[in-house]
Amino acid sequence: MKPVNIGLLGLGTVGGGTATVLQDNAAEISRRLGREVRISAVCDLSEEKAKQICPNAAFIKDPFELVQHQDVDVVVELFGGTGIAKDAVLKAIENGKHIVTANKKLLAEYGNEIFPLAEEKNVMVQFEAAVAGGIPIIKALREGLAANQIRSIAGIINGTSNFILTEMREKGSAFADVLEEAQALGYAEADPTFDIEGHDAGHKITIMSALAFGTPMNFSACYLEGISKLDSRDIKYAEELGYRIKLLGITRKTDKGIELRVHPTLIPESRLLANVNGVMNAVRVNADMVGETLYYGAGAGALPTASAVVADIIDIARLIEAETDHRVPHLAFQPSQVQAQNILPMDEITSSYYLRVQATDEPGTLGQIAALLAKENVSIEALIQKGVINQSTAEIVILTHTTVEHNVKRAIAAIEALSCVDAPITMIRMESLHD
Amino acid sequence: MKPVNIGLLGLGTVGGGTATVLQDNAAEISRRLGREVRISAVCDLSEEKAKQICPNAAFIKDPFELVQHQDVDVVVELFGGTGIAKDAVLKAIENGKHIVTANKKLLAEYGNEIFPLAEEKNVMVQFEAAVAGGIPIIKALREGLAANQIRSIAGIINGTSNFILTEMREKGSAFADVLEEAQALGYAEADPTFDIEGHDAGHKITIMSALAFGTPMNFSACYLEGISKLDSRDIKYAEELGYRIKLLGITRKTDKGIELRVHPTLIPESRLLANVNGVMNAVRVNADMVGETLYYGAGAGALPTASAVVADIIDIARLIEAETDHRVPHLAFQPSQVQAQNILPMDEITSSYYLRVQATDEPGTLGQIAALLAKENVSIEALIQKGVINQSTAEIVILTHTTVEHNVKRAIAAIEALSCVDAPITMIRMESLHD
Repeated sequence: MKPVNIGLLGLGTVGGGTATVLQDNAAEISRRLGREVRISAVCDLSEEKAKQICPNAAFIKDPFELVQHQDVDVVVELFGGTGIAKDAVLKAIENGKHIVTANKKLLAEYGNEIFPLAEEKNVMVQFEAAVAGGIPIIKALREGLAANQIRSIAGIINGTSNFILTEMREKGSAFADVLEEAQALGYAEADPTFDIEGHDAGHKITIMSALAFGTPMNFSACYLEGISKLDSRDIKYAEELGYRIKLLGITRKTDKGIELRVHPTLIPESRLLANVNGVMNAVRVNADMVGETLYYGAGAGALPTASAVVADIIDIARLIEAETDHRVPHLAFQPSQVQAQNILPMDEITSSYYLRVQATDEPGTLGQIAALLAKENVSIEALIQKGVINQSTAEIVILTHTTVEHNVKRAIAAIEALSCVDAPITMIRMESLHD
Repeated sequence: MKPVNIGLLGLGTVGGGTATVLQDNAAEISRRLGREVRISAVCDLSEEKAKQICPNAAFIKDPFELVQHQDVDVVVELFGGTGIAKDAVLKAIENGKHIVTANKKLLAEYGNEIFPLAEEKNVMVQFEAAVAGGIPIIKALREGLAANQIRSIAGIINGTSNFILTEMREKGSAFADVLEEAQALGYAEADPTFDIEGHDAGHKITIMSALAFGTPMNFSACYLEGISKLDSRDIKYAEELGYRIKLLGITRKTDKGIELRVHPTLIPESRLLANVNGVMNAVRVNADMVGETLYYGAGAGALPTASAVVADIIDIARLIEAETDHRVPHLAFQPSQVQAQNILPMDEITSSYYLRVQATDEPGTLGQIAALLAKENVSIEALIQKGVINQSTAEIVILTHTTVEHNVKRAIAAIEALSCVDAPITMIRMESLHD
């Protein structure tokens, strides 16, 4: 049987990894698939690199030429970004090529353009590597859990942030120091904004939200809050109270709409997600029939990500010549069933909250704070004096029960207006992960 | 598009759950699949129950009639066991029906008969629910990790045993007491042998081993050791040393052959698997490209197991009319590539070991024991005096480095022959879960 021909766009980390996996595991892949997968054409800025890594592939300088090459069945887009990558993918689809991509930004921001075109042209667009690297979470959401109504997803889906938070907790270090260490180790980019401010996690949770609930991509409505402003004191206090702080991507279906958000989150230390450390990723899915499932593994790196890219290639290769209209739909639901749904503004989400208040240590202070919370219907689970700043000022940590976010925000504004409160309140959301 | 017609064999726990999932999530399933899934025929000992649960299905008293019924596309076998279930499945395949089954015993013991027949008749046999209930681990092994050479699998795949071990640890209770409690809660059968002696876990690790390494089923070569002889002292000592004891199913590819075994195992408490408690299941897979991935969820129960059954039905429904020879192979590898491989006898596996020795508390005892271990090339990681039995007798716990099992067994025999050792040595295997 003739080989499946891959046209590879980009020989960066993941592109190089993909070439390695296809070469090193060629025999194992053929044993499974029943045919060979070969890189027939490659495009990269460096022809020398291309010739070195893919000596048997045609080097094609122009990506737009590659995506219409007759010896290419599947275009594997590993340029990243939304410039040439977007145009090349659209052009490839126009030319009837199937697509594999690891490009979360492209799908989260332009998926609503890409997927309808792919349906029109009857090509597959696979993107396992776009979310949580080597963990087969897209396959779980689209296929493994297909009998369920999914209720919520919460994931540690940015390894850089998780590494930084793990180090801050274990060593008690400040954010800036750990970031420097992460950069030295290659776990963080020179410009780390994309990872530490939640954009990367936002792209990934946007994609999972669409798959879970059968909606278009809603990245522009995704709330993004990163870890750069986290104080190591809060990590310490959280730990003393039995919690860990993780950067979570969260999406949840409620009666009023869909929650879609990325932010630092306190989670109980006994939960598996709380014990996912270093650069590792994990995604927790809650679904109506199966209940809680969790998927853990490497969220980045050349070979883990390439593992997902090649799994997608194998999936496509199985169906490439099949006469069928019954492939797994791109967004898990039939195109006609993908329905826009209301994404809740943050003021309308429900959560519980960790609040740290810096206040004058005098009789009546706690009472005043408690009264203002009660006035906004925020009920208190715990109220503990933690640190003492100086002779007259103390730090009070409050854990609230679940409430609507605008209640908490109004209470915070009122408390900050008290004369005994002398600094902005720190607010971090909490998730019990029991629903 | 016409519905997919299911013939359901058995309305026990999982059968009833399957009917519930198909009914309650009918709309969601159609939104994903693009067609309806309906139970067209049902067979159960109780016609009354069948009429009540599946009022729109034909009741067919004789399973062998159901499996050749013209209005059945997919036979869902949920009888369990290897009597009628086996004959009905073989007959259904003969009649060109696709199969979904949750029957781990049937596949582990008769898979080598069932799968070749299914290939000959070109029907799909899906069995996600047979391993780890609602966790989509079969899909991960067959598809999600298809680009990898799998190195090893270690799983908590029997909820009853894990519940008992969790309770023994948390409450310090004896095995017999916790078993009674588990029976009262419905977590253990009246005759619990199948669960607590490792048979159930053995069936499941046998199936995963075949999928991972491309071999036939090797259940008869699987080593089975359950938890009924575990002493709560060993759970306590393990915990003091930073370990938890779990009943693991383990399979590993080595240069000399495949390890395939079920036994209580010490694992470091920091590993995610060590923190999987109660009736929950989890499977850790180590593969060459992706590294470590882990899959967690409910391993039993009506609805979680039915979630997997219905996912299999949806997979089949997508391809039922497709003109393709390129379905995912039953055992992950092309039938021609399934190769028998040597299953290592237990004496030839490598592991590290926890040994508890009861010995006279007198000068020279430790030296004698250490010398006998050294003589068999067993090197000691830790040697600690734990408990004192009486004035003259103490308990010594030894943790060894990795070695071949027959070395340890020879050392144990030699130590037991010492006059200062006055009871059989307790030996429990350990896994670092780092490979």
